[in-house]
Amino acid sequence: MTFRTIDWTENKIRLIDQTALPGHSLYLNIETVEDLAEAICSLRVRGAPAIGIAAALGVALAANNHTDEPAEAFISSIRDAMDVLGRTRPTAVNLFWALNRMEQVLNQAAHLSPGEIRERLLQEALDILNEDRLICHQLGVHGAELIPDAANILTHCNAGALATSEYGTALAVIYEAVSQGKEIKVYADETRPLLQGARLTSWELNANGISVTVLCDSAAAFLMQRGEVDCVIVGADRIAANGDVANKVGTYMLSVLAEKHEIPFYVVAPVSSFDLSISSGSEIPIEQRDRSEVAAFMGRITVPEAVPVYNPAFDVTPNHLVTAIVTEKGVLTPPFELSIRKVLLEGGILSDA
Amino acid sequence: MTFRTIDWTENKIRLIDQTALPGHSLYLNIETVEDLAEAICSLRVRGAPAIGIAAALGVALAANNHTDEPAEAFISSIRDAMDVLGRTRPTAVNLFWALNRMEQVLNQAAHLSPGEIRERLLQEALDILNEDRLICHQLGVHGAELIPDAANILTHCNAGALATSEYGTALAVIYEAVSQGKEIKVYADETRPLLQGARLTSWELNANGISVTVLCDSAAAFLMQRGEVDCVIVGADRIAANGDVANKVGTYMLSVLAEKHEIPFYVVAPVSSFDLSISSGSEIPIEQRDRSEVAAFMGRITVPEAVPVYNPAFDVTPNHLVTAIVTEKGVLTPPFELSIRKVLLEGGILSDA
Repeated sequence: MTFRTIDWTENKIRLIDQTALPGHSLYLNIETVEDLAEAICSLRVRGAPAIGIAAALGVALAANNHTDEPAEAFISSIRDAMDVLGRTRPTAVNLFWALNRMEQVLNQAAHLSPGEIRERLLQEALDILNEDRLICHQLGVHGAELIPDAANILTHCNAGALATSEYGTALAVIYEAVSQGKEIKVYADETRPLLQGARLTSWELNANGISVTVLCDSAAAFLMQRGEVDCVIVGADRIAANGDVANKVGTYMLSVLAEKHEIPFYVVAPVSSFDLSISSGSEIPIEQRDRSEVAAFMGRITVPEAVPVYNPAFDVTPNHLVTAIVTEKGVLTPPFELSIRKVLLEGGILSDA
Repeated sequence: MTFRTIDWTENKIRLIDQTALPGHSLYLNIETVEDLAEAICSLRVRGAPAIGIAAALGVALAANNHTDEPAEAFISSIRDAMDVLGRTRPTAVNLFWALNRMEQVLNQAAHLSPGEIRERLLQEALDILNEDRLICHQLGVHGAELIPDAANILTHCNAGALATSEYGTALAVIYEAVSQGKEIKVYADETRPLLQGARLTSWELNANGISVTVLCDSAAAFLMQRGEVDCVIVGADRIAANGDVANKVGTYMLSVLAEKHEIPFYVVAPVSSFDLSISSGSEIPIEQRDRSEVAAFMGRITVPEAVPVYNPAFDVTPNHLVTAIVTEKGVLTPPFELSIRKVLLEGGILSDA
């Protein structure tokens, strides 16, 4: 990888500002939880796993910034930070999963000194970061088995190294397939409104020497009709117990189009994306984002001011349109209700009732 | 209508510059064929019927600008103008249809004086303009029969008054349904890359008091999944003998999504959009437009320079995904091979072999 998405350096969080890509590779040094919350809300750091890592590092940052306070105020400051970070993005389950891990460490260490608590929290955050790196690599290894040589792969949004610690989720499969010597051509949907595919996916694949072509989201159907797509690979922000997938708006569109054109549709996501508290996709909250994302660009108005905008950040792909879900533990196939439960039981993440 | 798309005034072509909408209502006075060709190529005037009208007026403009030349040079100048205009946009059949009508008038009048030829060509161009107005009104009347009260209608690109002389094709149906007292809510796909839906459709509907909401093209599937769309209405750039429809890229996407969600999919187009020389959609040439339409916006780079872009202007919707084709002669239903032939025979446009 030719860049670092997010890291902990000199008691600060260092991250690449993804709103400046592909024009500028700008690194930010984040020193406060408020600045981190702003960076998450305005998508300077984005992608479910990267948001989880950022939130964990944010808790470590809060502990670091408040170590001199009396124990009670110190712990209260950390809990405040968790609240602030928990309110940044409602859909990505990794955010809550990471904050939950940090809270458990805090609870177990509550009797220790602020300095000791700070060390434990930082270690936990760095563990989350390093575990993510291993997980992404494993996603790539398992997913690459599904990819034939000389495959044309369509992807949406950015489920790449920029969305994680390294490698990515969907793109980890591509990086791994290429490293195995397979000849891969990638088509990247531009992904309106924020153009993560055009700006980020194409930037990171091209930076790593992989052939990539950008197209408008609405051209994907035509590309499939022409026989130019061998499989679709996307990430996931949250997966329900039955395998319904919440991901960037447009993912559901691709799943319907893939079914129509008899193209395999693969979802690549770490086990932490499964949310068994949610039985099906209809229960997943869908974030509606600001009209300005669609209605203006670089200060130019693209929708008349009097006209409302429907701007869901995510959509839900029903399980019957998903060919397989690639996890770090292996490839899951339908019926997903069973295969998801099985992988969580085997991983000790779920205990048998 | 609160504006004029294209008109002939004081020996010039006057048109609203659609690249400046919705921010500015800017009218251009076109005095040369070269300027008109530039306006067509750069989409200052766009939409198949409006392009046909523009081309016809462009021939009249050439005749007007060269009346003082000797007869042979005069006619040669007009033919040069036809060549220039014929090279502007390869997919819209109305362009060639209009130029063909002008050429027939020119051939029949070739023995007359330049002044007389000029008058005949101008009259023919104005006839094309006025016929289009009547046709659009009739499209609305026939199409409105398909629209129930309190319908939510999804449309793509701009098949509106801005794409024709007045009323539009797809939007004529909406204008007519509203004028009949039906309560209509319109969803307009923004239509990447040039945002005709966001900039033009929402502008003209809102300017005429009709409820319209803009969404990203990739969100249409989710909107349908939520049950918010009662029918899809689009225009057409060209329709093959079997009813396959070439229209703005993204139209095919909507047709697949409409089928999946059991939503009627209506195409609204004048009879002049039928091209019986083409038996099926696979023979329709698809214009590939410049990468800069996708790769940059307002000077900001959105795709890295090293990355190629796939940018088809149109796609082809197969006839089996079309519920009905609304023409000025009535509503056509499958099998379209028969119903298209029948309407052309009845209109005297096609003679029985």
